[in-house]
Amino acid sequence: MSDQNDEVLIGYRSSIDNIDSALIVLLAERFKVTGKVGEYKAQSGMAPADPGREAEQVERLRELSAQAGLDPVFSEKFLRFIIDEVIRHHLQANEKE
Amino acid sequence: MSDQNDEVLIGYRSSIDNIDSALIVLLAERFKVTGKVGEYKAQSGMAPADPGREAEQVERLRELSAQAGLDPVFSEKFLRFIIDEVIRHHLQANEKE
Repeated sequence: MSDQNDEVLIGYRSSIDNIDSALIVLLAERFKVTGKVGEYKAQSGMAPADPGREAEQVERLRELSAQAGLDPVFSEKFLRFIIDEVIRHHLQANEKE
Repeated sequence: MSDQNDEVLIGYRSSIDNIDSALIVLLAERFKVTGKVGEYKAQSGMAPADPGREAEQVERLRELSAQAGLDPVFSEKFLRFIIDEVIRHHLQANEKE
């Protein structure tokens, strides 16, 4: 039987697709907020990066991951992946000015 | 004023933290499902990777991202990031057998 016609697999994939849709809209919302943070920091003369804040985020997400059954190491990689994208957005925004 | 006492920034960061909590629990749930998919494919003798399925996921998430105001290129990078982690889990699971 091909993978495409396997009903068990179709059920799992339907759940994965639903979760991915939720992840995408949450990420869109997150970048909306970090976009506002970038604008606000620029207007207020604050430094774009804040290592203390990032350390707090890493610690909080590692704890939450452990509770949720997610590898804490992965949660840190994930946050790093997202923050790198936020920094890329900030650099692009600065270029436009 | 330090960043830590700025009420506007505190408000934005509270939203970012809430969104991150939601992302983490959704990711935990996603890896639970892909774990089951991995077991099921191994039991059924199906190949672990499915390039056709991945191409469909990329296309769907790109469209959804455009609607949500998220960079479609980022959504593809994000999916690749997640799938790489899924593959890492599968390899670890195989080593345990």
